[in-house]
Amino acid sequence: MNQVEWRTSLRLVGTVLKWLWVPFLLPLGIALYDGTAVTPFVLPMAGVVVAGEGLERLTTDTTFREREAFLMVAVIWLGVAVVGAVPFVVAGAGTLADPVNALFESMSGITTTGATVIIDFDAHSRAILMWRAVLQWLGGLGILVLATAVLSQLGVGGGNLMETESQTRDVTKLTPKISETAGLIWRLYLGLTGLQVTVLYGLHLGGFAPKMTLFDAVAHAFTTISTSGFSPRAASIAAFSPAVQWVIIPFMVIGATNFILIYFVSQGHFERLRDSEEFRFYLAILAFFTIAVAGILFLDGGPHTEPESVVRHSLFQVVSIVTTTGYASTDFNFWSSGAKHLLFVCMFVGGMAGSTTCSIKALRWLVVLKAFRRDLFVASNPRVVRPVRLSGSVVDEQTIRDIYAYALVSLLFFIGATIFVAVDASRGQLTVSEFEAMGAAAATFFNVGPAFGIAGPFESYEPFSRSTKLLMTFLMWIGRIEIIPVLVLLTPSFWRT
Amino acid sequence: MNQVEWRTSLRLVGTVLKWLWVPFLLPLGIALYDGTAVTPFVLPMAGVVVAGEGLERLTTDTTFREREAFLMVAVIWLGVAVVGAVPFVVAGAGTLADPVNALFESMSGITTTGATVIIDFDAHSRAILMWRAVLQWLGGLGILVLATAVLSQLGVGGGNLMETESQTRDVTKLTPKISETAGLIWRLYLGLTGLQVTVLYGLHLGGFAPKMTLFDAVAHAFTTISTSGFSPRAASIAAFSPAVQWVIIPFMVIGATNFILIYFVSQGHFERLRDSEEFRFYLAILAFFTIAVAGILFLDGGPHTEPESVVRHSLFQVVSIVTTTGYASTDFNFWSSGAKHLLFVCMFVGGMAGSTTCSIKALRWLVVLKAFRRDLFVASNPRVVRPVRLSGSVVDEQTIRDIYAYALVSLLFFIGATIFVAVDASRGQLTVSEFEAMGAAAATFFNVGPAFGIAGPFESYEPFSRSTKLLMTFLMWIGRIEIIPVLVLLTPSFWRT
Ligand SMILES: [K+]
Ligand SMILES: [K+]
Repeated sequence: MNQVEWRTSLRLVGTVLKWLWVPFLLPLGIALYDGTAVTPFVLPMAGVVVAGEGLERLTTDTTFREREAFLMVAVIWLGVAVVGAVPFVVAGAGTLADPVNALFESMSGITTTGATVIIDFDAHSRAILMWRAVLQWLGGLGILVLATAVLSQLGVGGGNLMETESQTRDVTKLTPKISETAGLIWRLYLGLTGLQVTVLYGLHLGGFAPKMTLFDAVAHAFTTISTSGFSPRAASIAAFSPAVQWVIIPFMVIGATNFILIYFVSQGHFERLRDSEEFRFYLAILAFFTIAVAGILFLDGGPHTEPESVVRHSLFQVVSIVTTTGYASTDFNFWSSGAKHLLFVCMFVGGMAGSTTCSIKALRWLVVLKAFRRDLFVASNPRVVRPVRLSGSVVDEQTIRDIYAYALVSLLFFIGATIFVAVDASRGQLTVSEFEAMGAAAATFFNVGPAFGIAGPFESYEPFSRSTKLLMTFLMWIGRIEIIPVLVLLTPSFWRT
Repeated sequence: MNQVEWRTSLRLVGTVLKWLWVPFLLPLGIALYDGTAVTPFVLPMAGVVVAGEGLERLTTDTTFREREAFLMVAVIWLGVAVVGAVPFVVAGAGTLADPVNALFESMSGITTTGATVIIDFDAHSRAILMWRAVLQWLGGLGILVLATAVLSQLGVGGGNLMETESQTRDVTKLTPKISETAGLIWRLYLGLTGLQVTVLYGLHLGGFAPKMTLFDAVAHAFTTISTSGFSPRAASIAAFSPAVQWVIIPFMVIGATNFILIYFVSQGHFERLRDSEEFRFYLAILAFFTIAVAGILFLDGGPHTEPESVVRHSLFQVVSIVTTTGYASTDFNFWSSGAKHLLFVCMFVGGMAGSTTCSIKALRWLVVLKAFRRDLFVASNPRVVRPVRLSGSVVDEQTIRDIYAYALVSLLFFIGATIFVAVDASRGQLTVSEFEAMGAAAATFFNVGPAFGIAGPFESYEPFSRSTKLLMTFLMWIGRIEIIPVLVLLTPSFWRT
């Protein structure tokens, strides 16, 4: 074992950074069209090219093992977050002018979290609001490539299971090179984004969505397929008609569906949907929580009165939170304690592995459920050997152990973060209830976005203390890249021989 | 595989029940001496003899496998809780006259939890108050026998690890029969109880503890060694002098120390303390949390002003909660949010395996820490095989997986219970903050006893709704016998062939 070749990692980070000037073109174009400031975009465009080229020249070494991959993943997300914050600081408008806020917003963007520190949406140019959406779209694409090409190879938190269950292995046969897999996913991602823009703007042109301008259609398509949830509107999806809300629901579901599975379905292999235990489990989760929330809202007799609106808001919010999108079709702060707690539980679930979804993910919970049921069986029948099966294949015991550990460590992080937020708030002047602290900790760590009360869907994370906001920035970072790549960096042995 | 021989399980429950008339003798004697009602004790004494003899005649079958053991364990704790509630209902005094309250109090007794639904301590006879202490003392003895003789054999939540680490295997060599191990532990338990009675009453006779009567000395010795925490005083240990508080601390520490280890130390093998990684970890936990709490209280500048009282209360409360005793030397409800949250974290820890302590236990956390550190190492060095070692021996991977699963399932139960308590309270008229719900859920599930706010050390669980109190009774039951024996009963396969 040799030392980690950090130069190799940084060289690859450089290759990513170097091309980061391209996505700045969209907000730059809007700024030129609107006649608003262009420096917030031109400056970082120049910066990333220089920095990227510089990092690429660090080394010619091509050693690339697990350690270099972990370091690269951690640094890319952190680096892009820093670059993404530059336009906010340079534009200098509203709460985003503060560097801590800007970094929070940018990290919330690239990690597809969707928690915002904006208070006054009107203070910001359309170009800046579009930059937030672009960051999330990039973050979604980045995680897809990461999940299918890198994390599954590294076996993070049972990631090798994704190899079989998510059918990554099948696609690896189709496209033996990582670059080909990435290309396939990238075209699918682009296609789905285009489809949603068309549908949303079509609704507008058809008169079903008066407020859904082309700008809004693009921004929302960017932040739906990436299950990320930034909206240029302060009222999120509640700003739009019920038709828009109904249309966004299936796109959120698709964003949190395994993209390899979507690819096969797009090729006409519908039987893959039925064959995937994870997909059936994911749909069952959505159905279960929607029925439970709708049942509670009906029994509560409020705040929604029409049956259609109870069903729509229940389905929308459950899908929004399980997929970790974080859009709001209504201010669920006004829902009863039971309904809010159900949404809180949804934060821990997440959609399918191999998608843009965040959180612990349905695949891991399915393995936990099956393995624990097996463990109970073996406890009373210790002489029986019973493997855990998923979609017909045996899940190996080391994968099960890794998944138990991943879920456990996630919960411990969540508990620790909750305590930090609650205690830090109590030391300041901010009134944050324990439930609000729990919600805000889960919403940032699991990259959901909005939570409850002070961190509610129409509120802002701005009032939290700077230390809390920095903690949350850290939580969004490690939550998005599945914890392990960051924790590995924190072990001394990583840096030694 | 044949069906579970439930008659065999019940026959053994009968054997335990049959002898349950003996511990009633102490409160009966006090009732006779004080001239208070004796029916609350005579009635169940007759009842257990009849029921026990009856159950023993159910079968002559002696098949005794894992399934029969799980069923027996679950039914014994539940059965004794029901029997233990009879005196409270028959006495009919105060809040304990209500059957739900009586069952809660009795379950809290036999599970060594120490959460009380008493509001007016003066409403109850000394005999009834002593019965609460006797229940806890029995519960502590029961769990010791269960932990060393049964659970470790069943491998519950990594229980087979206890075989090696807790040196149960060594003692099995000394005493090949379960009855001999039980006898050894029983004498040690009795000896330590006697020692504490002597010390406490000695303090009284020496003038250092004016209120520590012989009655109090016996009741508190019963509930210290069993790390259970019922006090006949409404103010718990705050009712006594600092000298008493200092003396109780080491006895709580001993109560949560592995009894096999204590046995070897009592035989002069002090090197065993040094050789046990778990013991060193347990002491390190106590030191860490004490220093952290004391540091916060010093910085807060209140509510304690004297350095001695800051140190004493910090140490007392940390020891009380980590060992899951649950005594209070002060009303820590008045502590700051940071200090209270630290105590909250202590609830999840627990003392050493093979003691009377509850909660997840230091042994499991030590394995989680070591295994997760190993997992991180292997993530960046996948070609290196590195086993997890404890006190020099390799921990097998299946044990690690079971321990991960146990900790995970414990946290999930805790989260589920918190939500139940919070939502159930919001539906009633009771104001329960989320932190209070979290505390009450953890304090009952992990058998600590008191928590925060409405469930604080000088408060009562009585105001909670009946549904919440029944849930908590269930939580105390499954928490005490380490979850698995109850969950196993809930799987259909347990009852089938
Ligand atoms: K999100
Ligand atoms: K206790």
